[in-house]
Amino acid sequence: MSSPPRVSADSSNPSAVLEGANVLSGQTPSTLSINADRLWQRIAELAAITDPDRPYSRVAFSDLHAEGRQWLTGQMKQAGLDVRIDAGANLIGRLAGSENGRAAIVSGSHTDTVPRGGRFDGIAGVLVALEVAQTLAENGERLRHPFEVVDFLAEEPNKYGFSCIGSRAIAGVLTEQQLAYVAADGTSTAEGIAAMGGDPERLGSPLRDRDDLAGFFELHIEQGVVLEQDAVDIGIVTDIVGITRYRIRLTGEAAHAGTTPMNRRKDALVAAAILVQEAETLASTQQTDGAYLVATVGKLDVVPNGSNVVPGFVDLAIEVRSNSNEQVDRFYETFLARFREVCNRRDIALQADRISDGAAIGCDQAVQSALVEAAEMNRASYVRMPSGAGHDAAYMARIGPSGMIFIPCLKGRSHCPEEWADKKALATGAQVMLDGIRLYDRRL
Amino acid sequence: MSSPPRVSADSSNPSAVLEGANVLSGQTPSTLSINADRLWQRIAELAAITDPDRPYSRVAFSDLHAEGRQWLTGQMKQAGLDVRIDAGANLIGRLAGSENGRAAIVSGSHTDTVPRGGRFDGIAGVLVALEVAQTLAENGERLRHPFEVVDFLAEEPNKYGFSCIGSRAIAGVLTEQQLAYVAADGTSTAEGIAAMGGDPERLGSPLRDRDDLAGFFELHIEQGVVLEQDAVDIGIVTDIVGITRYRIRLTGEAAHAGTTPMNRRKDALVAAAILVQEAETLASTQQTDGAYLVATVGKLDVVPNGSNVVPGFVDLAIEVRSNSNEQVDRFYETFLARFREVCNRRDIALQADRISDGAAIGCDQAVQSALVEAAEMNRASYVRMPSGAGHDAAYMARIGPSGMIFIPCLKGRSHCPEEWADKKALATGAQVMLDGIRLYDRRL
Repeated sequence: MSSPPRVSADSSNPSAVLEGANVLSGQTPSTLSINADRLWQRIAELAAITDPDRPYSRVAFSDLHAEGRQWLTGQMKQAGLDVRIDAGANLIGRLAGSENGRAAIVSGSHTDTVPRGGRFDGIAGVLVALEVAQTLAENGERLRHPFEVVDFLAEEPNKYGFSCIGSRAIAGVLTEQQLAYVAADGTSTAEGIAAMGGDPERLGSPLRDRDDLAGFFELHIEQGVVLEQDAVDIGIVTDIVGITRYRIRLTGEAAHAGTTPMNRRKDALVAAAILVQEAETLASTQQTDGAYLVATVGKLDVVPNGSNVVPGFVDLAIEVRSNSNEQVDRFYETFLARFREVCNRRDIALQADRISDGAAIGCDQAVQSALVEAAEMNRASYVRMPSGAGHDAAYMARIGPSGMIFIPCLKGRSHCPEEWADKKALATGAQVMLDGIRLYDRRL
Repeated sequence: MSSPPRVSADSSNPSAVLEGANVLSGQTPSTLSINADRLWQRIAELAAITDPDRPYSRVAFSDLHAEGRQWLTGQMKQAGLDVRIDAGANLIGRLAGSENGRAAIVSGSHTDTVPRGGRFDGIAGVLVALEVAQTLAENGERLRHPFEVVDFLAEEPNKYGFSCIGSRAIAGVLTEQQLAYVAADGTSTAEGIAAMGGDPERLGSPLRDRDDLAGFFELHIEQGVVLEQDAVDIGIVTDIVGITRYRIRLTGEAAHAGTTPMNRRKDALVAAAILVQEAETLASTQQTDGAYLVATVGKLDVVPNGSNVVPGFVDLAIEVRSNSNEQVDRFYETFLARFREVCNRRDIALQADRISDGAAIGCDQAVQSALVEAAEMNRASYVRMPSGAGHDAAYMARIGPSGMIFIPCLKGRSHCPEEWADKKALATGAQVMLDGIRLYDRRL
């Protein structure tokens, strides 16, 4: 599964820098190969557990989700793992370590999907972790640390209205309010967790701490086009971006599109159009000093939205994601100041509400180093890059050293049936995970 | 009801020019005054014929529409008019003229409303025409020409999907396709016209021609803010704008809002935002040589419209209205050329379809002159202005000399319950209509 090293001279992602193979360590583990066919076969088997009318759907807390976990439990046992479910209803398979009293190295992701989602998002990370465990077990190689494969509960949006329920539970950041949230079917989040085998009574504090987590490793499809377009095998994740969203409401005056001269209009859509462009321009120019920053107006609704009415009202959402919290603050400061000017000049009322606010989280340096070295050992090309999407790893990073790798996916597509990763890309990723975890285990 | 002449030194509507009282003619008719209270009372009575849960609703072809016409028929008869319904189901009340063989002078508008519409749009024009007729009749003054009051059928959008059905019928431009259109309730337009008392068999050609129409006069609320903001009593309509609409579809690529760097996006909404601004800028600068031109993007839909997805598709409607067909062509030529460039540069697929195309129609000079003179006689301030909205007068102009006046309405609002015109503004308008029609009648 190793591919010749590829070096792209010009990566158009400013924060993505290809690096040479110059950090090989003396502590290189002996050769051990993952089983690419078995991994690929498991992807297909889990994908088949779907609502047949809406492939690929295995939404958290559904019967299909439970059925998928039942299948996964069987696979874990078959690989020689001890299986349990923690208080946050995370499904965990464990291999003992060779040295007593060591904290666990943990790897995994999630098996739930969005409705009509794909076969790789989350799933790949869980089954790769399982493949790592099984390769170790069947070759009789024990890590110094216990090794745990985890399927986090409900990473995707679900009926309780928030995501990453399992990893939040482990990090101890599930709030009373979140646990008490009642879904449309009348059940609370706490009841949902209990139904999946968890123990909501025990969720007041972190389920693990630094003494219980030696390191966390997650593989995920990139959900972006950088690796594919630049023909790179592995993305070494440096940070997981923070997401800050504003809801912006622009109130002008609805008016007759024929009888209202241009200079007497208070057109909320023209103001919104300036905002959309301003956000793009500002985000494009603000990427300095290797920081990653993207700004998106993805949702925009016009009222009344009639072809013969000057729009009186626009409701939109803008989000900024960056690995630099300082750059996010700078973006909004500049953006809102400029935009207030535009609205004042046009007599448009501007209401801007910060509706969510997440800080960026850096990945652990030792975890990154082990993964870089593993890529080089396997002659896999790699690039350091931020994760623009949120992942369970962001919650795990709160309680211990954590890191991620990305593998390329077709056209960056995810959360849709067309989501795709090649068998070879998966195998390369799994091999880098195996060797990265083994290197990390030896050096800690 | 006459008000002191007001002169605004600076009209910010480029095509609106206040004029001095310098064209008084020797042929001024003797004083005759409309009855402002009676007119106001009729507005209230007709407004009361509404769906009580959705004031003010008297949608064309509904039972309430028929009930309103029954009431109007009674009012016409009471005023001394001979009432008939023509083949297009227009309700017509007629006063004989003093000279045999003369074509009729016609005045009116429509009594149907949009759902949850107002009390003045269309209604004012019908009831003012009736007030003109009754003032003539009760004062024993006969025009040389017959005088007809008309309530056109279905000027507003209705279940058959197109407007101005009655005036189209008179002009002979109802197509076979329009007559055959079947509404959701299973009836065809032809059947709807028959149900309202018309004779669809006779609609192949114009119901009137120049020999049968000496002139057409319509009063309407402005549906804009120019008269109110500039404190002018009367708008003398110079042209009725043509409306040209494009449907524009922009196809970029939906992408993850976190993982797709700014320079790898094909954001359809950013392209649309440039288009919206470009349209405003171009329309604002293109008003040259007294032409009126407005451009509006009133309807814009984003797909998939999620706050965390780079928009892959935008569907929008742009319309341009102008009294200069040449300026409309110039607008679209410049606009589409510039916008194609933007889309090419951004790798966005642009589909632009011209979905409707109406030429501007000029109002008759003799009709305008009579109305101007009538305004001056009554010391009413006036301004010449185009109509940015479509009206029955645009169809009547196809078959004979036609003109319109506007009266101010509150904040330019129409098609809503808040639509409002002052009693005094209505009375001034009615008096100008009475005297304008009398002047026109004498000079023809």
